[in-house]
Amino acid sequence: MGDLTHFNKSGRANMVEVGHKLNTQREAVTSASIFMKPETLRRIMDQKIKKGDVLAVAQVSGIMAAKNTSNLIPMCHNIFLTGADVEFETDEESSRIDIKATVRTTGKTGVEMEALTAVSVAALTIYDMCKSIDREMEITDIKLLKKSGGKSGDYVREGYEKLLEE
Amino acid sequence: MGDLTHFNKSGRANMVEVGHKLNTQREAVTSASIFMKPETLRRIMDQKIKKGDVLAVAQVSGIMAAKNTSNLIPMCHNIFLTGADVEFETDEESSRIDIKATVRTTGKTGVEMEALTAVSVAALTIYDMCKSIDREMEITDIKLLKKSGGKSGDYVREGYEKLLEE
Amino acid sequence: MGDLTHFNKSGRANMVEVGHKLNTQREAVTSASIFMKPETLRRIMDQKIKKGDVLAVAQVSGIMAAKNTSNLIPMCHNIFLTGADVEFETDEESSRIDIKATVRTTGKTGVEMEALTAVSVAALTIYDMCKSIDREMEITDIKLLKKSGGKSGDYVREGYEKLLEE
Amino acid sequence: MGDLTHFNKSGRANMVEVGHKLNTQREAVTSASIFMKPETLRRIMDQKIKKGDVLAVAQVSGIMAAKNTSNLIPMCHNIFLTGADVEFETDEESSRIDIKATVRTTGKTGVEMEALTAVSVAALTIYDMCKSIDREMEITDIKLLKKSGGKSGDYVREGYEKLLEE
Amino acid sequence: MGDLTHFNKSGRANMVEVGHKLNTQREAVTSASIFMKPETLRRIMDQKIKKGDVLAVAQVSGIMAAKNTSNLIPMCHNIFLTGADVEFETDEESSRIDIKATVRTTGKTGVEMEALTAVSVAALTIYDMCKSIDREMEITDIKLLKKSGGKSGDYVREGYEKLLEE
Amino acid sequence: MGDLTHFNKSGRANMVEVGHKLNTQREAVTSASIFMKPETLRRIMDQKIKKGDVLAVAQVSGIMAAKNTSNLIPMCHNIFLTGADVEFETDEESSRIDIKATVRTTGKTGVEMEALTAVSVAALTIYDMCKSIDREMEITDIKLLKKSGGKSGDYVREGYEKLLEE
Repeated sequence: MGDLTHFNKSGRANMVEVGHKLNTQREAVTSASIFMKPETLRRIMDQKIKKGDVLAVAQVSGIMAAKNTSNLIPMCHNIFLTGADVEFETDEESSRIDIKATVRTTGKTGVEMEALTAVSVAALTIYDMCKSIDREMEITDIKLLKKSGGKSGDYVREGYEKLLEE
Repeated sequence: MGDLTHFNKSGRANMVEVGHKLNTQREAVTSASIFMKPETLRRIMDQKIKKGDVLAVAQVSGIMAAKNTSNLIPMCHNIFLTGADVEFETDEESSRIDIKATVRTTGKTGVEMEALTAVSVAALTIYDMCKSIDREMEITDIKLLKKSGGKSGDYVREGYEKLLEE
Repeated sequence: MGDLTHFNKSGRANMVEVGHKLNTQREAVTSASIFMKPETLRRIMDQKIKKGDVLAVAQVSGIMAAKNTSNLIPMCHNIFLTGADVEFETDEESSRIDIKATVRTTGKTGVEMEALTAVSVAALTIYDMCKSIDREMEITDIKLLKKSGGKSGDYVREGYEKLLEE
Repeated sequence: MGDLTHFNKSGRANMVEVGHKLNTQREAVTSASIFMKPETLRRIMDQKIKKGDVLAVAQVSGIMAAKNTSNLIPMCHNIFLTGADVEFETDEESSRIDIKATVRTTGKTGVEMEALTAVSVAALTIYDMCKSIDREMEITDIKLLKKSGGKSGDYVREGYEKLLEE
Repeated sequence: MGDLTHFNKSGRANMVEVGHKLNTQREAVTSASIFMKPETLRRIMDQKIKKGDVLAVAQVSGIMAAKNTSNLIPMCHNIFLTGADVEFETDEESSRIDIKATVRTTGKTGVEMEALTAVSVAALTIYDMCKSIDREMEITDIKLLKKSGGKSGDYVREGYEKLLEE
Repeated sequence: MGDLTHFNKSGRANMVEVGHKLNTQREAVTSASIFMKPETLRRIMDQKIKKGDVLAVAQVSGIMAAKNTSNLIPMCHNIFLTGADVEFETDEESSRIDIKATVRTTGKTGVEMEALTAVSVAALTIYDMCKSIDREMEITDIKLLKKSGGKSGDYVREGYEKLLEE
């Protein structure tokens, strides 16, 4: 097993040096799900047509959070993102919304944390906008689906190989 | 079922007016879990004694995130928090860490979002500090356990009644 | 004529003391306009129905900016807002979008700056999202329409008396 | 007419991918004006000599805002700026202050938004510091004067060709 | 000797609960000094008259930092400040600038951290603006001079009793 | 003596243009000290073993502050840091803690300000966490020890030559 890198010689946390790493194109794809009452999901879906748009606000919050990641995660490098996207898929059968984020950079560190932060904050925003009608929503399955670029090579989570083809 | 409050007359999102609400003492308790390889969990636990301290960094990040919530969640009011705490419990059997946050205010809005943001960011920080040895960690079960204060009254999630006695 | 208050004894800028002021309900209403090519306006309006939604993003940015005002305007107090709303009206004849913001607080200072910042940032966001097709958009007429609460009393800009009745 | 780029396949806003773009030197020049009572303008000009300095504070706020742009404008990339400057010209005849910002980067995106945000926030700061004596100030004519670098080529707004020679 | 309050039951840092504390008027006065070469000091002083103004920028940075304190100091409450001022005194004999900050609030916590952060950041800004001509400047004597309001009562640092009379 | 670079033609502060500078590896090492009562120092050292960990929180705050520097110091460029570390040494004899920060980048500007901000904020955090038992702590000797990279060449403060060998 490898090393936990975020520690200095005296065992305290640091922001590890990456100056020797190459600037390469890097991408991370992540997902999260938020479960809710069927009635809540229906309200979100209807509003997309009728009036307000919960997912539009969640989308904006996820992208802004990706850019803000290094202010939230203490040992995470502040980096320039070349692009960020957040997508939603509603699943009426299980009464949940799936959130997928894709973040890219040309730089010295991966963008897993940016993409994980994007789906987390998008999910929290959905919670915020619907909490007056459904306190029991649950956010689950925040995870890395795919990662490319950098020395450690490409990674695709088992069961998500179809992402490779996109 | 009640109303989705975060929309104005033309159906666009707004930050709902709470000027008429009373300043009351409010509290929210939330939790999240992060699953990881047994080896990762052991490394985190050993370091608590031997050298670095993943959970110390996660704790700080969770508390700072609670204060930063209104910059992340678009329609969330910016409020003064009277206190914030984050606690961890490690469960070796299921190879996970449970995170619990308690946030309090004396004000016009609840602090659910602040407490949910605290556990989410603490979990993301654990991911960040261990991702070099375990990419497949999953963050799950981000949820509200308890809420008190405000007009809508107290709430305890089913199965968490013991929290009432604390 | 009154005094410029934002200066200390040696003539340097300071954040003026408001500790002696009463906590009262305060409101500010502001507006801005952004002029563009007719084709640009049509594209924004069509998208509201068909696909993306420029104004949804602008709305979110305006409300977040209102909360962020004291980090942008150096001598502006950091305050709790009880509510914030941003509205848009499209005027095809003059090929412009009018933006109106309403911000409220219960506190010791007015919220003119928060409401002016909201319309400014909403307008800048419209520019950002359309600049690939129209570089020559112009943002104009950022102004205070109405103000209530506080010792200096209510104010309605000449020509905007109808706002009083809302 | 070109395409609105800030939308993904399902029509939602995203931060467009720029990883394929070249790092080139880019510059944007923008301007804004703020109209005020003659008495207000005179007070600002006198203070430059006598005591406080409204424009010094506005200058600082404009430059800090340029660096902060990607936190304000949701779909705007976070980039490294190589330089930023804000200048003021007072026009007693029309009783206004003209604000000009010049922002530069070596990067993959233009800096129009940074330069537009700089003049907007500088103007808002002037409003803030003088609002106790003049509520009716108006901020107008926020616009792009010149842009260079990048694939879309150089641009100079009609009537501002003299900027080319600077 | 009292207790270190910033720890929870398991010994981890938390943001201590202050909901039971009274809202009282509180003030803190702090100071810092920055030593430099005589030539550097003379340049700063001359510019105050002739051209640029290092201290004007430092002043703005100190006041903005006071408002930003809770984002910098992890266990520090986010509070509303009723006022903030930063003053400079130049001492040619010892070739240093003394910085004094006064911060006030009406609230549940003291404002020592806000006032200490204000003088620290103002001093760092002076360093930044002069570092091209003097790398060896030193910032020293950052300390609390006076504190009033709150249960722990008033405090004046020995040797600074004259501050009581202001 | 060189020039104060942070001023534009009309003598106002600006963020100086660095677009022509080379991207080189740059490093800055800084230090600060905080003096306290012997009892306070003992409490901090004991807690490192027994319960809470003041220095763990200070460490996190220093590293986050390094990333946040350009939001605090008005004319400081926003840059990507390749690494940041903060170390503590306790000196019981003089009853003080010495703080050392090392910051690195590959870029067009030095990282002195980032490293000076890191030690300053780490020291302020120690003050914050111990102020309930010791109001009279003093932060001193914030200074640059070493700087490398960039056109102005390497620099080591007199008396710190041993840092060259690390």
